[in-house]
Amino acid sequence: MIQPHYGRLRGLVAAAFTPFHADGGIDIARVAPMVDYLVEQQIRGLYVLGSTGEGISLTSDERKQVAEAFVAATRGRIPVIVQVGCESLAAARDLASHAQQVGADAVSAVSPVYFKPDTVESLVDSMAHIAAGAPDLPFYYYHIPAATGLTHSPLAFLELAKVRIPNLRGIKFTSPAVFDYQACVESAGDDYEVMWGLDEMLLSGLTAGGTAAVGSTYNFAPAVYHHILQAVEQGNLEEAKLWQSRSQQVVRAFVPFGPRAAQKAIMAMIGQDCGPSRLPIRSLTPEAYTQLRSQLEEIGFFQWSQLATSSANA
Amino acid sequence: MIQPHYGRLRGLVAAAFTPFHADGGIDIARVAPMVDYLVEQQIRGLYVLGSTGEGISLTSDERKQVAEAFVAATRGRIPVIVQVGCESLAAARDLASHAQQVGADAVSAVSPVYFKPDTVESLVDSMAHIAAGAPDLPFYYYHIPAATGLTHSPLAFLELAKVRIPNLRGIKFTSPAVFDYQACVESAGDDYEVMWGLDEMLLSGLTAGGTAAVGSTYNFAPAVYHHILQAVEQGNLEEAKLWQSRSQQVVRAFVPFGPRAAQKAIMAMIGQDCGPSRLPIRSLTPEAYTQLRSQLEEIGFFQWSQLATSSANA
Amino acid sequence: MIQPHYGRLRGLVAAAFTPFHADGGIDIARVAPMVDYLVEQQIRGLYVLGSTGEGISLTSDERKQVAEAFVAATRGRIPVIVQVGCESLAAARDLASHAQQVGADAVSAVSPVYFKPDTVESLVDSMAHIAAGAPDLPFYYYHIPAATGLTHSPLAFLELAKVRIPNLRGIKFTSPAVFDYQACVESAGDDYEVMWGLDEMLLSGLTAGGTAAVGSTYNFAPAVYHHILQAVEQGNLEEAKLWQSRSQQVVRAFVPFGPRAAQKAIMAMIGQDCGPSRLPIRSLTPEAYTQLRSQLEEIGFFQWSQLATSSANA
Amino acid sequence: MIQPHYGRLRGLVAAAFTPFHADGGIDIARVAPMVDYLVEQQIRGLYVLGSTGEGISLTSDERKQVAEAFVAATRGRIPVIVQVGCESLAAARDLASHAQQVGADAVSAVSPVYFKPDTVESLVDSMAHIAAGAPDLPFYYYHIPAATGLTHSPLAFLELAKVRIPNLRGIKFTSPAVFDYQACVESAGDDYEVMWGLDEMLLSGLTAGGTAAVGSTYNFAPAVYHHILQAVEQGNLEEAKLWQSRSQQVVRAFVPFGPRAAQKAIMAMIGQDCGPSRLPIRSLTPEAYTQLRSQLEEIGFFQWSQLATSSANA
Repeated sequence: MIQPHYGRLRGLVAAAFTPFHADGGIDIARVAPMVDYLVEQQIRGLYVLGSTGEGISLTSDERKQVAEAFVAATRGRIPVIVQVGCESLAAARDLASHAQQVGADAVSAVSPVYFKPDTVESLVDSMAHIAAGAPDLPFYYYHIPAATGLTHSPLAFLELAKVRIPNLRGIKFTSPAVFDYQACVESAGDDYEVMWGLDEMLLSGLTAGGTAAVGSTYNFAPAVYHHILQAVEQGNLEEAKLWQSRSQQVVRAFVPFGPRAAQKAIMAMIGQDCGPSRLPIRSLTPEAYTQLRSQLEEIGFFQWSQLATSSANA
Repeated sequence: MIQPHYGRLRGLVAAAFTPFHADGGIDIARVAPMVDYLVEQQIRGLYVLGSTGEGISLTSDERKQVAEAFVAATRGRIPVIVQVGCESLAAARDLASHAQQVGADAVSAVSPVYFKPDTVESLVDSMAHIAAGAPDLPFYYYHIPAATGLTHSPLAFLELAKVRIPNLRGIKFTSPAVFDYQACVESAGDDYEVMWGLDEMLLSGLTAGGTAAVGSTYNFAPAVYHHILQAVEQGNLEEAKLWQSRSQQVVRAFVPFGPRAAQKAIMAMIGQDCGPSRLPIRSLTPEAYTQLRSQLEEIGFFQWSQLATSSANA
Repeated sequence: MIQPHYGRLRGLVAAAFTPFHADGGIDIARVAPMVDYLVEQQIRGLYVLGSTGEGISLTSDERKQVAEAFVAATRGRIPVIVQVGCESLAAARDLASHAQQVGADAVSAVSPVYFKPDTVESLVDSMAHIAAGAPDLPFYYYHIPAATGLTHSPLAFLELAKVRIPNLRGIKFTSPAVFDYQACVESAGDDYEVMWGLDEMLLSGLTAGGTAAVGSTYNFAPAVYHHILQAVEQGNLEEAKLWQSRSQQVVRAFVPFGPRAAQKAIMAMIGQDCGPSRLPIRSLTPEAYTQLRSQLEEIGFFQWSQLATSSANA
Repeated sequence: MIQPHYGRLRGLVAAAFTPFHADGGIDIARVAPMVDYLVEQQIRGLYVLGSTGEGISLTSDERKQVAEAFVAATRGRIPVIVQVGCESLAAARDLASHAQQVGADAVSAVSPVYFKPDTVESLVDSMAHIAAGAPDLPFYYYHIPAATGLTHSPLAFLELAKVRIPNLRGIKFTSPAVFDYQACVESAGDDYEVMWGLDEMLLSGLTAGGTAAVGSTYNFAPAVYHHILQAVEQGNLEEAKLWQSRSQQVVRAFVPFGPRAAQKAIMAMIGQDCGPSRLPIRSLTPEAYTQLRSQLEEIGFFQWSQLATSSANA
């Protein structure tokens, strides 16, 4: 059991994008302004090199470079969680060590996917192997069955991992199974934490006991989710539902364009251009970009998606 | 667009069990006392011959017999929705006609599964074929992708079905995709209704705008869900979460025993014995029955699962 | 263990189409000429009301009517196997009894799909329940995992079913898992039989030990498969491969149009019109029909698909 | 279109194991004797760092070390194909460059799995990116849908890749869809080649036109497959079927122990110990090892699995 220096996470953690140049190389210079923007938008933490950050599409050296850049750019203002999972547990462990060394606040890892751990025990052992690379950092297991195809119970994982992974901190829980989520939150208690991972169901996660959430749309529609958090705090379910509906409208608008590439396009639309996606993800064509922007305009996205701040926005 | 005589459904609709004799025959005599019990427990409607009622495991003649028995036993106290879906749309349509003829209040149907409709259009046409068998009754499409394997968007279904199915009333929505649910609820507005179908996530359904829910555990743990409904109405999310947690504890207790057979076992435990399940579902062994009862006792199930009434319970 | 009066099946068994009128009703008058055509084309058995026959889309009464029509039209020239599987085991058993009563030669059944048997034991018990409805007829289990979603080992099924189903005759095996097929064939020995079910891989089935095969394309391209059978008997693998290639060209041509409806269209093209498909399967549009015909003409299908006979063909 | 210096592959290509020390480190010293053994057993090529070689579980540095070791140990006696696929196309391309530089004979790659290419075009573009890292070497796409979850047609891939990947050589085809395989073989003609990848269905692959096959069981049961190759050449299908049956018995024996770890255990049993597996694959317990050995003894495996040579075997 580990208590992180940043205490319990509360509020929105942005699953950060990795900026690329047009030629596919890492665009390190874009990291700092993006982090400043996210801090201004009252984002409470960064989850870097996850699915949104295309971490798994980078080489190990690139991942290290990006992790360092985010840690440096954040300057301790909010915690930086580095996702290090990949097919090779040895490579993941090395990335975890590096994250600790360069001053990240926590480490997280998704399971290997090509060779799927066949039991909860194998999964816990696999995660333990990675977590041991950064023994001083809190470790979050990244549960995302739609991407990994794993069917192991996250509750069973949590209960076994508490015993076997000394620096376990919790789970990033990305699944619509709210009943499993609530069970994990209850099992976590005060000593662990389970971050909610489905933006378009944030309200469900909060009513099940979630206090922090990691998501990609928090990057470009933070105001929507701040409204949900506030409304829930005030017990105003109608208001919360209204904003959740807006969140869903946004998601319905971009998903048909390919969710990952489309979200990078939206970042450009709000003045936080972080370049194209990398293969195997295809970037939007200019026509698709224009079409998506029109659809977002139609639902008023550019009016209500972000917090008014002194400097933000294009 | 059809407005049912019972108006909008509100509260808990029990997905009723079909009582069997030990030899597998229908035990009609058990229907009436079970219905009385459910009415006493403030159940607001019955959904008969669905997944819980093993409708699809019965012959057409048996389904008709069971539908009649439920309509007769209910005596108009609460609406009776008869699930008529099966692999043959012709047979389903005939069951729909029969339901209308014997005085059911509404009809519902699941998609064929062996031959899956290949597009939303085919799905709507298939449902239209069935609904036309009971033109005077409201019709609810039964969306349950985990059982059917259908991946068509329920929102797309709803929007097309509004145009093509004159007696469409809405959807029974059994999926954890709360974002899809909220979209359907919004599209439904006042003219249609979308019943929530996942008991262990009732709170998520309610916060997404649901007003009625159909479920199997409402049969034997109605008090749990009445508490959730009340707490939400009072804006008391902590209380709602507490009772949802109890609901989840119950589900976690019985699922490992085979969810359908185990729930019939629980009915016997609370004095509402409705016999064994039918193959391909296997009933619990006596050992499993005892083990399940112990686990339910351990969590206090028999103390808090039902409403205190003058006559209920064993 | 049962030895059927027709001995061991050898050669091609046609998975027969069910003829429908334009309005969707059964077109009984089309059965007899279709059977005559199939007998002329040296088809060695009929498998009626299976996937190709859309059995599961018919009512029980319609299934009985069709089974009777095929038995009557065949007049004992070749064995008639009636597929009786459906979601309700009680209904399936009743259909089995009827098949025996009207003089069918064998019965076969697919597993229920909506409620999937959870173990091999449950599956065997479910099939035993059906088979007991026709105790004097040989019974074939219909293994088709792509349609049922069942993952139980067919070999484990066979070995347990030998013990528990007195009138078990074997399996209709529709899966590309040739290694499982060969294991079943070896386990079957002389006392049971395992019919091969993937037309486009007939050669694989034969080299794994198969002696009979059930398929839909045998209806309209029998010559192709007779050539394969002959070539294998003569040890001429090059010739067998050539004809298997033609079989695959046909399948690749029609699959994009929706495999079931497209095959009915091909029946019309060769002068054996058996009407449209039933919902949830959509029939081909006239445009699609023309397009498919052109593609088949291009590969020479109408030159080499059928045996020259005195009377066949349009 | 590229014609490799080794011409067309014929016969058995071993999917080589990567030897590990007990502590999980690479055991380079074991590579050379294993290669000598495989050459003695008339293996015609090596496919290194694929699924059998756990390539994806290694770091990039380890993969380079292993690739070099195999190239060095083989000394040009048979071609060495290096599998470089991983989640990061950039890392895979770098591995391809390295393979060319150290003298490998060909490169092969599996698709990323976490982010699946959404169309055949994306898949071809992804493979083109990798193949361009080793422009002078023949490139084989590794098609293994059971592991990747990709559903794109391999024929469509092949036809587009011929145009877009200058150094395309063909496909390693690991799927039971023999009809797709035959279509690919026909499309390949003399200019490309499609290696068969399912050992327990080798006979199916050969009768569909295959001339070379890559597999893991060729490492420890080469005699079985040499018999199949010979029998097919002689047109003796009965003999081929007999040996295929033995192959299947072996596979059925080890699969329940976890196929990958169990095969490494068999290597130890035949005197070619290559150490444990790496997490997320668990090695066999000593009890499981003994049990597996007994089962293999029972079927006579140690009598008929390998070719008699002057030096082989323990």
